[in-house]
Amino acid sequence: MGYKRRKRLSAEEYANGIIEGDRIILSRAITIIESKLNEDILLAEQILEKILPYTGNSLRVGITGVPGVGKSTFIESFGKYITSRELKLAVLTIDPSSQISGGSILGDKTRMEELSNDPLAYVRPSAAGSALGGVNHKTRETMLLCEAAGFDVILIETVGVGQSETTVKGMVDFFLLLMLAGAGDELQGIKRGIMEMADAIAITKCDGDNIRKGQLARAEYQNALHLFPPSETGWSPKVMTCSSLENSGLDQILENILEFEKKMKDKGYFQSKRQEQNLHWMHETIESYLKRAFYSDEDITKELPSLENGVIQNKVPAIAGARKLIELFNKKRNFHFED
Amino acid sequence: MGYKRRKRLSAEEYANGIIEGDRIILSRAITIIESKLNEDILLAEQILEKILPYTGNSLRVGITGVPGVGKSTFIESFGKYITSRELKLAVLTIDPSSQISGGSILGDKTRMEELSNDPLAYVRPSAAGSALGGVNHKTRETMLLCEAAGFDVILIETVGVGQSETTVKGMVDFFLLLMLAGAGDELQGIKRGIMEMADAIAITKCDGDNIRKGQLARAEYQNALHLFPPSETGWSPKVMTCSSLENSGLDQILENILEFEKKMKDKGYFQSKRQEQNLHWMHETIESYLKRAFYSDEDITKELPSLENGVIQNKVPAIAGARKLIELFNKKRNFHFED
Repeated sequence: MGYKRRKRLSAEEYANGIIEGDRIILSRAITIIESKLNEDILLAEQILEKILPYTGNSLRVGITGVPGVGKSTFIESFGKYITSRELKLAVLTIDPSSQISGGSILGDKTRMEELSNDPLAYVRPSAAGSALGGVNHKTRETMLLCEAAGFDVILIETVGVGQSETTVKGMVDFFLLLMLAGAGDELQGIKRGIMEMADAIAITKCDGDNIRKGQLARAEYQNALHLFPPSETGWSPKVMTCSSLENSGLDQILENILEFEKKMKDKGYFQSKRQEQNLHWMHETIESYLKRAFYSDEDITKELPSLENGVIQNKVPAIAGARKLIELFNKKRNFHFED
Repeated sequence: MGYKRRKRLSAEEYANGIIEGDRIILSRAITIIESKLNEDILLAEQILEKILPYTGNSLRVGITGVPGVGKSTFIESFGKYITSRELKLAVLTIDPSSQISGGSILGDKTRMEELSNDPLAYVRPSAAGSALGGVNHKTRETMLLCEAAGFDVILIETVGVGQSETTVKGMVDFFLLLMLAGAGDELQGIKRGIMEMADAIAITKCDGDNIRKGQLARAEYQNALHLFPPSETGWSPKVMTCSSLENSGLDQILENILEFEKKMKDKGYFQSKRQEQNLHWMHETIESYLKRAFYSDEDITKELPSLENGVIQNKVPAIAGARKLIELFNKKRNFHFED
């Protein structure tokens, strides 16, 4: 809106372009996927249906960590290492400029410039939108397009503060948590529960004077992880150190991810997890539509504030407030209120 | 259903009986709260509205731990200690006999017999129902009735395996995790993420030969907790040891809970957390009704299996499957499908 519209291709043309690895068409298709225009929503689904048989062959890796942990720098150096191994890499990042209105945090130009110019790499920044933590609600579909375009590895970056980790964890095969040495103030802001979601932890900035501190932290975190209940897959998350400055430890991290892939494929967990993720995503999508339909109803938006107030002040039982709103909603519909 | 129905009282009579501390009326009111009959649902809400001004004065404590950790035994001895301090105690437990059809795990009679006979205590087993983990979906309202009946402390037991911990965490002031000494096989089955939800950890069965092992485990867990990101309230969860056999450590646990209550009240977190919980509960209730309405629709139940299959086999994009079902659902209604 406000942008000049390009001539749209057919779903077939987009799909073919993507499958042939045409990056310009891929980028335009992603824009359609992210669009909220009604005509684009249908086109997006047609594209998705056509490319679906070509998806599923990438390794999907989520990367999280609090601001300051050096995520962009890590992804740049780790990404370069991945392409040096002759693997084609797509990176879906959050564009921080869209989070703070009217300005950018780092400046888009300086984010992953080297990687962006790498012929084996494709970097796609997504507007963070209104979702705290910055996962675009179409990140999953964007990932599918990249898969169909033939990338071997897809890295998805999340910010490490909001609900986005759970969302990303639900769409990737491997979840990597970046942490700083020292378990004190640096941890402020990371969401509780994230450590237990990690398939591996990488301690960043382990160079120069920081090496010893990093190694100590590594041992501490590794100990802590042993206290967590084991995962049903039998995978034990490893804590590793690395430095984007010295390009050290990156090989070990990739080996760990590839070892995970092999083990999970051998045991059949890899495929069954993806099937569960697909199914979960369908239900997630349904539930978020239902919620949106409910909370955007004008009768509901009118009544909600006073009922919320009553509930907060303990004057209206939560369950009665819920029932009143549901009855209001059902009046216009054939909804059947049942317990 | 199959049970002989007693004459029902009016909402007023139930509410007055509860507020006066009449346990027979309390028990009958809880049965109405748990009922799924339409006439009971309305009566339940009327009772709730009347008793609401009398709620909010209990300390609400959730207790979880895997089977085998000695939850019932702990609650019995901890409960006895609480009543020995002249505090009135309500315990909401899960009746395990309802989880395994046709038989009981422990036998209801042997569960908390001593506590059940304590005049200062009220033990209410709830049928676990179909929810894995066994939190009855009306546990929160049952808790409110107990509060209105004047209990000082309410313990809510959960099983430690399913989604129930998150639900219970969302309705209590303090969440206590019971664990066994030794971080190996005993942890099998506990849900990942639960450790980070705990406001305190108590290591059970620290008696006889187990004392040393328990103390070692205490130090280990305490160390591990230090690595977790700090809570915004500034509360640091403590790891304690106890024995239900020797009645040791129970005083320390209660002191810890009371210290928590005092600190959180001083800082204002206690009340604000309860307000958030109330609000959250209203929205939770709405969302679960919406989901039920959707998934119980006969068109949906007819179409769902084949679409789920398509999604699992990667033939239908999850987002397209969702959209097809939503359109089917909307056909009968005024729902407006929007992104």
